[in-house]
Amino acid sequence: MMEQLITDLAKHSLEASRFLATLPAEKKNDVLGTLADFLEANTDGILEENAKDLAEGEAKGLSNAMIDRLRFTPDRIKQMADGVRKIIDLPDPVGEVIEEHKHENGMILSKVRVPIGVIGIIFESRPNVTIDCAALCFKSGNAAILRGGSEAFHSNTILSNIISEALEANDIDPACVQMIPTTDRAATSVLLKLDQYINCIIPRGGEGLIRAVTQQATMPVIKHYKGVCSLFIEETAKPEMAVNVAINAKCQRPGVCNAIENLFVQASAAQTLLPEIAKELIAHKVELRAESKAKSILDKANIPCIEATEEDFFEEYIDLILSVGIVESTEEAIQQINKYGSGHSDAIVSENQKAAEKFLNGVDASTVYWNASTRFTDGYEFGLGAEIGISTDKLHARGPMGLRELTTYKFKVVGTGQIRS
Amino acid sequence: MMEQLITDLAKHSLEASRFLATLPAEKKNDVLGTLADFLEANTDGILEENAKDLAEGEAKGLSNAMIDRLRFTPDRIKQMADGVRKIIDLPDPVGEVIEEHKHENGMILSKVRVPIGVIGIIFESRPNVTIDCAALCFKSGNAAILRGGSEAFHSNTILSNIISEALEANDIDPACVQMIPTTDRAATSVLLKLDQYINCIIPRGGEGLIRAVTQQATMPVIKHYKGVCSLFIEETAKPEMAVNVAINAKCQRPGVCNAIENLFVQASAAQTLLPEIAKELIAHKVELRAESKAKSILDKANIPCIEATEEDFFEEYIDLILSVGIVESTEEAIQQINKYGSGHSDAIVSENQKAAEKFLNGVDASTVYWNASTRFTDGYEFGLGAEIGISTDKLHARGPMGLRELTTYKFKVVGTGQIRS
Repeated sequence: MMEQLITDLAKHSLEASRFLATLPAEKKNDVLGTLADFLEANTDGILEENAKDLAEGEAKGLSNAMIDRLRFTPDRIKQMADGVRKIIDLPDPVGEVIEEHKHENGMILSKVRVPIGVIGIIFESRPNVTIDCAALCFKSGNAAILRGGSEAFHSNTILSNIISEALEANDIDPACVQMIPTTDRAATSVLLKLDQYINCIIPRGGEGLIRAVTQQATMPVIKHYKGVCSLFIEETAKPEMAVNVAINAKCQRPGVCNAIENLFVQASAAQTLLPEIAKELIAHKVELRAESKAKSILDKANIPCIEATEEDFFEEYIDLILSVGIVESTEEAIQQINKYGSGHSDAIVSENQKAAEKFLNGVDASTVYWNASTRFTDGYEFGLGAEIGISTDKLHARGPMGLRELTTYKFKVVGTGQIRS
Repeated sequence: MMEQLITDLAKHSLEASRFLATLPAEKKNDVLGTLADFLEANTDGILEENAKDLAEGEAKGLSNAMIDRLRFTPDRIKQMADGVRKIIDLPDPVGEVIEEHKHENGMILSKVRVPIGVIGIIFESRPNVTIDCAALCFKSGNAAILRGGSEAFHSNTILSNIISEALEANDIDPACVQMIPTTDRAATSVLLKLDQYINCIIPRGGEGLIRAVTQQATMPVIKHYKGVCSLFIEETAKPEMAVNVAINAKCQRPGVCNAIENLFVQASAAQTLLPEIAKELIAHKVELRAESKAKSILDKANIPCIEATEEDFFEEYIDLILSVGIVESTEEAIQQINKYGSGHSDAIVSENQKAAEKFLNGVDASTVYWNASTRFTDGYEFGLGAEIGISTDKLHARGPMGLRELTTYKFKVVGTGQIRS
């Protein structure tokens, strides 16, 4: 039963994706405009369904943080609608000619951007992800299958219904965006084996969710994994810049994936630089977890810190906590970052171009910074527009994933009867 | 034991990949030059080891075709060495700046091509794949783990030893290219779970191998799946062009993946066009398997054919056999091709631009042709140089995969102390 239900749903998505692949940008934008309007017009209904999720969440004893992530307010609904309107303004990537090449026999080969096809999004908690992902997939010509967390089921259901209404109001097949209509976990397992219908899965959520999806899926998965980002202060760093970048990267918004969790300082300069930076971090209420060499420097300077375990350096705190280590060289910093980091965003502060280039080349991350804060890793900051996430994978897309990263390409070859000899 | 052996091997590959990622092109080319020379110099040794595989294969009762695929000759060894020399001449994709962008705060963002990291290649039969894949991975800065078929174990082992010697002769870590040193099947299962060390798996072989790899692998897989390619003769097709393209696409080299297996003719023109094409195909010794409507036309014209089953249209014959069907419209042709094809290469012959554009947009394949033979889908023909295969997947790389498709990118951001506000 369940297997049939999910298989049929995925089949419809594939059919819808064939149609959606050639839908003109204006038509897609019409749908997005309708969706934004319908969201605002249905504010009361959304709040009502959301209240059910909140009540169930409280009864289940969800944490305040989780309840807050779950909660809609009129203002958050307005923001969600405005987010959809921003996607209207972004250029449609479909049809873009990436390269063109004339074969010596006269054939014209063009490499043209096309939608991926059917994308499955598996996500937790925040129900606004339903709308963000649906709008981005739709604008890039992909059919979307959405599988939200059970704790947001009522909210996700009404949002999914509003999307269907917006599609139907524009005479578009509602199978272009479908939600899995059950909280049964078996549905996800079925979904992850349907590689004949689903071209790609994007999981968004905690480590457990991502591991489970990766283990089970038989189609490609693009992971939006944790952000264990590091900052390395090389011996030639200007002290003021080192302090500013460290404070910004850790404290400006500690709950996001491009905030740093690890700080490494080169030994030769640590006696002066580390206390200077640490004092400012403490003033910003950051808890420092220092490995032994760093701890002895901080102790001598009377700066409070606790002793770090090795596990701390793998940790994504998403909070005002920072692991601190001392390294002998840029090479050692690169090694440590490649060992503990999640390949998201890492920075060096240095006035030595050779060291900086070594770092930029040697650190294996989606984004590497020289004398700038890691906090810039973001679709808007990179000029890509709204993002569906930040890929910590290396295949297909790496770093911020915007509309263009939700496409693939095909080769179109136009001839006059050419045959191969 | 096995698990430890394979895990250690993969760990070494990851370490080697960090080093290889920044190796200059000249140094990589030196290794490839040495490799080509060592291959020729070791011709006798290779033939000796190959003879062991051939003897075992004959004892096991392998087919003549398989024995031929397995066999080295002095000439084939020379060709293999020349293939490596051709890769020396290709530009190194690593370090290429794909895009550059200045942030309004003055930071320079560049999107730079970098190696993927560690690539596992799982392949069957032809031992020359060992050298092709090793050379392409190495030139693109990737560490390679090679897992060949057990029937070519002796040949693969000596080739792998020659690669190690070529690396060592240039003072390069031999872990840059490693072969799984056992025919135990359990080794593959271990390998496919090591996503912390291996970034990507490329299986090359039959359907069974590819399915098994896709089911088990926890890292991304780029499939080089079967080529069920189709040709559609639209009603406005010039008869002579239709015949030429059909003959070339089917008969010029029937054993390759870009040869056609299905022919569809539009009903309105089938009475004249189909017999004309079919006569020529028969003259080229092609067996025709026709669905009922096509069969009745061929029967009337006294052209020999057998009745096709639906399964025939899914079949990759790789032989002088062709399934033939009649469709009412271009839309139906698109539907049939999307249903039966493997997303490799499909062509339309037509003088009607609207129909052709519908076909090029609607057929979901790596390469779509208008008035040209499907036989052109190939790295050299597309200007990519030597290819590691032809991807029938849609993520990361689609169609012929050359050196550039063996890379990913990272963002390098260079600032002067910028922080996010």
